[in-house]
Amino acid sequence: MNYQPQASEAIFFMETVLNASERLAELPLFQEVDAALMMQILEEAGKFISDEIAPLNQTGDSEGAKFSQGQVTMPPGFAAAYQAFWRAGWASLTADTEDGGQGLPALLDGVLYEWLSAANHGWTMAPGLLHGAYECIKHHASDELKTAYLSKIGSGEWLATMCLTEPHAGSDLGSVHTKAHPTTDAQFRINGTKIFISGGEHDLTDNIVHLVLARLPDAPPGPKGLSLFLVPKFYNDGTRSAVYCERIEEKMGIHASPTCVMRFDDALGWMVGEANKGLNAMFIMMNAARLHVALQGVGLLDAAWQKANAYAHERRQMRAPKALETQHPNKQDHQGPDLIIAHPAIRRVLDTQRAWIDTSRVLAYETSLALDIAKHHPDANQREAANRWCALVTPVLKSACTDQGFHGASECLQVFGGHGYIREWGIEQHVRDARIAMIYEGTNEIQALDLLMRKVLVDGGANLVQLCDQLILDIDGTEADGAHAITQLNQLRAITAQAIEVAQQPTGATTLSAIAGDYLRLTHLALMGWAWRRIRAAIEADDPRWTGQDQALKSWVLPEFNMRLTIIQTQFAAL
Amino acid sequence: MNYQPQASEAIFFMETVLNASERLAELPLFQEVDAALMMQILEEAGKFISDEIAPLNQTGDSEGAKFSQGQVTMPPGFAAAYQAFWRAGWASLTADTEDGGQGLPALLDGVLYEWLSAANHGWTMAPGLLHGAYECIKHHASDELKTAYLSKIGSGEWLATMCLTEPHAGSDLGSVHTKAHPTTDAQFRINGTKIFISGGEHDLTDNIVHLVLARLPDAPPGPKGLSLFLVPKFYNDGTRSAVYCERIEEKMGIHASPTCVMRFDDALGWMVGEANKGLNAMFIMMNAARLHVALQGVGLLDAAWQKANAYAHERRQMRAPKALETQHPNKQDHQGPDLIIAHPAIRRVLDTQRAWIDTSRVLAYETSLALDIAKHHPDANQREAANRWCALVTPVLKSACTDQGFHGASECLQVFGGHGYIREWGIEQHVRDARIAMIYEGTNEIQALDLLMRKVLVDGGANLVQLCDQLILDIDGTEADGAHAITQLNQLRAITAQAIEVAQQPTGATTLSAIAGDYLRLTHLALMGWAWRRIRAAIEADDPRWTGQDQALKSWVLPEFNMRLTIIQTQFAAL
Repeated sequence: MNYQPQASEAIFFMETVLNASERLAELPLFQEVDAALMMQILEEAGKFISDEIAPLNQTGDSEGAKFSQGQVTMPPGFAAAYQAFWRAGWASLTADTEDGGQGLPALLDGVLYEWLSAANHGWTMAPGLLHGAYECIKHHASDELKTAYLSKIGSGEWLATMCLTEPHAGSDLGSVHTKAHPTTDAQFRINGTKIFISGGEHDLTDNIVHLVLARLPDAPPGPKGLSLFLVPKFYNDGTRSAVYCERIEEKMGIHASPTCVMRFDDALGWMVGEANKGLNAMFIMMNAARLHVALQGVGLLDAAWQKANAYAHERRQMRAPKALETQHPNKQDHQGPDLIIAHPAIRRVLDTQRAWIDTSRVLAYETSLALDIAKHHPDANQREAANRWCALVTPVLKSACTDQGFHGASECLQVFGGHGYIREWGIEQHVRDARIAMIYEGTNEIQALDLLMRKVLVDGGANLVQLCDQLILDIDGTEADGAHAITQLNQLRAITAQAIEVAQQPTGATTLSAIAGDYLRLTHLALMGWAWRRIRAAIEADDPRWTGQDQALKSWVLPEFNMRLTIIQTQFAAL
Repeated sequence: MNYQPQASEAIFFMETVLNASERLAELPLFQEVDAALMMQILEEAGKFISDEIAPLNQTGDSEGAKFSQGQVTMPPGFAAAYQAFWRAGWASLTADTEDGGQGLPALLDGVLYEWLSAANHGWTMAPGLLHGAYECIKHHASDELKTAYLSKIGSGEWLATMCLTEPHAGSDLGSVHTKAHPTTDAQFRINGTKIFISGGEHDLTDNIVHLVLARLPDAPPGPKGLSLFLVPKFYNDGTRSAVYCERIEEKMGIHASPTCVMRFDDALGWMVGEANKGLNAMFIMMNAARLHVALQGVGLLDAAWQKANAYAHERRQMRAPKALETQHPNKQDHQGPDLIIAHPAIRRVLDTQRAWIDTSRVLAYETSLALDIAKHHPDANQREAANRWCALVTPVLKSACTDQGFHGASECLQVFGGHGYIREWGIEQHVRDARIAMIYEGTNEIQALDLLMRKVLVDGGANLVQLCDQLILDIDGTEADGAHAITQLNQLRAITAQAIEVAQQPTGATTLSAIAGDYLRLTHLALMGWAWRRIRAAIEADDPRWTGQDQALKSWVLPEFNMRLTIIQTQFAAL
């Protein structure tokens, strides 16, 4: 079965839980974006994805992108689907209307990309960098470059790449070697080899625009000596640039996405932004990009869940204990095996993953909203508060949601027994595809260090404490589960205060680096507690749609909080 | 890099930690198996595996087994390696000398197969079922069948399959449909289709011997109506039987192992054992088979660890906190990035996985020894005690070690950053290969139910309590860590007593099924605590080889114990 986007579910989280359209109405740009319009857009998006993108997922995996003599041929149907995608305006959902975009909120774009990744992660890699490239050119490129490239990228007519990584420089971009030599006419000649370039070459669009980190001849060493350059595959006069795809990588998954080794062979390009400030120009879109990767985790987990849930409702194996215990109305007819959904271990997997998906959606959609507010709210205080939310929550979601995307998809695979290991059923593809999201856009270990070292310690924990306070106020503590969520947020505050003290100690940085991953999980579990209270506040207490997840969250998910807390406390106490 | 077996490491666990040769000397059959002989055998095995098996691993994955018109062609080099393997006597290590075997302990066979799986899981699937088929034929087949097949299977000249699963009958073997009709001359005609038959067809050996579960015409429904039959690919007169490979599956991993759909088309065969007691005949070798799967998990994790550890000692990225803090003897020379092993998050992964590998080896080798003792000890009490150990510990190891094989290999992949996702580096293959071990030979959920429902509840927890007592006596409780291990074993006893009570309650079976996985993890963590005390008792307290693992076990692994305990207690309290 192919992935089925559920527009009404998304609207439930956006509107009923998060009150999105009312909050968007405060932003002049989005005053006309009401719930009805969002529902209409998401229904159309869901239909497009179901009809055009999801059916290409399995052949995309089995055929893969093909490389021959510098050319990359995408799997069958991919180019036509991409043309339909950008022509229908999906590629330009959040681009400004003046650049040929739709001018819609990041909130909708997040849902769109969650669904696209769920339906076909490999295909979705192609337009996945468009938004970042658009923002980068819009805010940093010269007027000449904007005239030539902005609307092409904004509309998605041309695709874009980010050429950062080199063989010896992965997480450590400061080690980038690629050189840029100025020419006499304000251009630059780029020389070097970049690896892991998603969509470095393909046959989806007429042109490809590369954004390349490189070093000027007089640049200082390290990250503060990197500048950003734009090199297209074809110049405006139709001539080919000296950027070549040398090969594509064989990978664990996302076979439909060509991961290219790109050689810049004295390739002529232009600087984007200021000299030696290339990282600044790229990091402008980091929160949005990381949030999209978090949503890939959510989407792929939902895709795996949909498959496993359907299978559990049609596969019969053995008697389940409950069926033996309860009075069966028609016992004579029921000699055979039970549906596996009746087996407690299977139900536990499905309820647990569903709880992850739904709480992650609340957190990710809230963060998408914060991106919109941070950018467009007329009140500077609101913008600042939204920026604080994004800074703290984005690395948490990138790491926790992609971890769960992989591990939860693997749990869903297990529901299929031996069939889960067979390609034909499609579930193992989700596990392989989901694995990359834990690595790219900053590994999950880097996210954990980013959270603790750069987002929490940097202001003595002030933002984190403020976030906890804000969430605590939002929870009804008169219920036992609400009180528990408040307790966990208070424990997060307390351990954060301890971390600030640990940072002052001689070997504090080593200890904090070792427990950064636990601290991130702790934060995510506390956020899940809040997200679940938000959902609970929006539903009837006895709505059977939520009972299983409610139990799963309390019984199987949240107990990890105390384990992580103990792990951290033990390390702190040992100092 | 290819996997490198370490004979001296294995001997350390077998001899220094577990005192194996002294314990084997109590068994008349193995009186001559001393430490020197075991070391010699393991060194030769290690050399054979390094030279002949490990180099075929990556091509085995990329080429895979090929199917065409009923024939299966194995990847290049596989057939020659298999011929060398059985001719050198490796296939027959534990078979009796009277059947052409080497008559050596299961302990050595366990290490051999751990290494083989680590070096090349796909290749190792081929001889993986030999031992079970040999035992099955030896103990259940008629003299005529033994004459024709026992020494061929015992030596490994011919390979064997187990034909159990059908499309609708996976974990639930009671639903098997395949029919066996008696002929007039004590033979049977088998009709039906079996799936997931590893090595159902291949070009490694001249003949393939299929052991098939099927149903006689008058058989009762369910598992008590299954009989076991032997159908070879070729009969003794050289004629071909009517067993056909219809296709092989595309899988997530172990591409070199053909997973066949086998059609029995009125195929002539013979019954093995008694009518309707086919499961008994197969279950004789269940503990050994499950232990070997546990060792696959250990082996694949070690293979992943070796790669990640090597990479962490040659890859440099960014400054690590410790390097900044400590006095560096040559600070001027050390401006560049540090080896990633110096980063606390990377060291944590490697130390944690190493702690899993080493404690798992102690537990698995102890269980191998128990298999030898259960079979060959002259004292019936000793045999019974060893059988009890195997019954309890085998499902625990099968589940916990294969879970860790997959999840730990994925952690090792993460050490490589983006390179981990690329085929070329070989680490992602281990993750894909390791995933199957969580499923076959009884899914890990089935293992958990087997432990709690069939091994623990069945005698009111008596065996489990006895096991805990025995391990507690073996631990020096005067040290803090020893006292902690004893506390966990006592907590395991206490929660087991509660589980016995829960089983009496009306919905007790549902609750126990839901927490069976937690109970299994709890048991494994308590066993790890004991295993680590055994290692500690055998080493110098300040041996730096073990410091990292010691810390990792205490800091990162064992805290899961309290989380699992809380999860179970909460469910029990809610009843």
